[in-house]
Amino acid sequence: MRPTARQVAELANVSVATVSYVLSGRNRPVAAETRQRVLDAARQLGYTPDQAARSLRKRRTQRVCLVLSSFGGVPSDERLATDLHEMADARGYSVVSLSVYSEARAKSAVEVLRGGIADGALVNLGGDHLTRDLLAGLAGTGLPLVVMSNESGLAGCDVVRTPEAEATAEAVGHLLGSGRRRVAFMAHRHEVYRDRPAGRLLGYTTALDRHGVEERIVTGGADDRVSAYQTATELLSSPDRPDAIFAASDRAAISAIWAARDLGLSVPGDVAIVGAGNIDEGLISNPPLSTVGPLRHDYTDVVRLLFDRLQAEEPPPAREIVRSWTFIRRGSS
Amino acid sequence: MRPTARQVAELANVSVATVSYVLSGRNRPVAAETRQRVLDAARQLGYTPDQAARSLRKRRTQRVCLVLSSFGGVPSDERLATDLHEMADARGYSVVSLSVYSEARAKSAVEVLRGGIADGALVNLGGDHLTRDLLAGLAGTGLPLVVMSNESGLAGCDVVRTPEAEATAEAVGHLLGSGRRRVAFMAHRHEVYRDRPAGRLLGYTTALDRHGVEERIVTGGADDRVSAYQTATELLSSPDRPDAIFAASDRAAISAIWAARDLGLSVPGDVAIVGAGNIDEGLISNPPLSTVGPLRHDYTDVVRLLFDRLQAEEPPPAREIVRSWTFIRRGSS
Repeated sequence: MRPTARQVAELANVSVATVSYVLSGRNRPVAAETRQRVLDAARQLGYTPDQAARSLRKRRTQRVCLVLSSFGGVPSDERLATDLHEMADARGYSVVSLSVYSEARAKSAVEVLRGGIADGALVNLGGDHLTRDLLAGLAGTGLPLVVMSNESGLAGCDVVRTPEAEATAEAVGHLLGSGRRRVAFMAHRHEVYRDRPAGRLLGYTTALDRHGVEERIVTGGADDRVSAYQTATELLSSPDRPDAIFAASDRAAISAIWAARDLGLSVPGDVAIVGAGNIDEGLISNPPLSTVGPLRHDYTDVVRLLFDRLQAEEPPPAREIVRSWTFIRRGSS
Repeated sequence: MRPTARQVAELANVSVATVSYVLSGRNRPVAAETRQRVLDAARQLGYTPDQAARSLRKRRTQRVCLVLSSFGGVPSDERLATDLHEMADARGYSVVSLSVYSEARAKSAVEVLRGGIADGALVNLGGDHLTRDLLAGLAGTGLPLVVMSNESGLAGCDVVRTPEAEATAEAVGHLLGSGRRRVAFMAHRHEVYRDRPAGRLLGYTTALDRHGVEERIVTGGADDRVSAYQTATELLSSPDRPDAIFAASDRAAISAIWAARDLGLSVPGDVAIVGAGNIDEGLISNPPLSTVGPLRHDYTDVVRLLFDRLQAEEPPPAREIVRSWTFIRRGSS
């Protein structure tokens, strides 16, 4: 006769529920020692939870959730969404999306996910609204979770890193190395309002420090094309205009190129311009846009982490992958 | 003693469930005659369903669903999403989004909505994937539904119309009226693959017909900036190049302006360019972009339809609103 969960529970001296938590794909936090006792008891008795029941329990909704900070307009988010939808299509999953752009929305998103709207989630947030604590709480429910973030101390989920700071430092170093001295940084709102520089802005300050340049020229404008154009026009119209602009998005950098052209300035002669993201549009700008970003826009490795986690028999150990980001020099710098 | 649903059912000679369907906000299809009998019986007995229970039943998830055809990149969709989220925030609702870009996704979205992922949905689709039949089936479940569509015969939901064809005909008429003779139309994919012209493309052919111009120059390219730039470059490099381009999106029209500038052509001197959508970016293009679209980007009237429906005591009669679209002439034509 096949051993039962009750026998495992008795041998491990825990409740049947605890056995279920530990051996199912969706376990709640269980002390490491207790967990080990359950695993030992199960092995000793040759107990394996019933496959069909478990797969039923794990695939409760056949939905995955994509959590983004915007309503669109961010090309890399669109690519990520496309790759997630395609892989979900192939596996018979639906995709629902949540937008998190405020603390209230972050809490609401966590509630919605805790409420079981999906079997797992892929989270990519520009801002800081979905804090480490909120994410840890979510991972603690056993929800399969993949988080794209450079934040440290994320536990219980797969983490995808992007070395933005390093790539940006390389690009700004290139500008300074080729003789530029007044390098402006056009930032996203969420980059300016952090307590201390991180990501692209950190890369900028690091490069300036390395080259002994003290002056920091940091403006907003990276979030949308219109404010980027206006900001660049203002910067480039001033008597002590910058001789280089690093924009934290390619969209903003392209607006800066127009602004320079409309002012009769040459790019890169009068002003060098570098963007971030490596979107295709950088190839049709005139001159073609220097940028930092991935060489190829392919998020299947990220998406695969989520489906691996959804389909695993046992929750796999947390993994971390580092995506490749690099400085890509073209005509604008 | 207060009358009960059972008494209403007995008097109307229907089941208690039917009474509940008719008197709740979420009624299933019930024959008009039966429905009237229930309403008469309820009135006769002075029966009113219990408020608290009803509000509990109606607000099952406190979520609304936004159904779009893209993953972003469409400025008006971003504005619509913003307005929906803001009104949902104010009313304590979460928002989940679904992307429908294929027939399979359309069916999956209908299943997800039928499965009760949200208390109501706002649907705005560029393509034809979510057919009238699918939408009618969804409305038939009693799900509060607001659909932005120019399709005829949508029943059981609120419908939001946009007179795109008329505004486009006006814009193309203006081009022809000012002496342009070779007017190209840069279309979205879904516009080209329809059985017969609709929306903006219909406006284009209508205007050409009115002016007795036989030649139609229809290309793709309106879906993204890069293909728009390439398409415009190709059109404008040919020996019999068009003297005007109507692009079905402002993003494509702006790419066409760059393409013309990069070829050394003057806008509007050599080629007039008109877009669609009236995005803010049209004000910073050089020259500023002529366009068709709403004067103001404000979707609160559309969003309010959904919340009215969610909060109504009785399902309100289907409403139809027509948004204002107009031809806005600026420097590029």
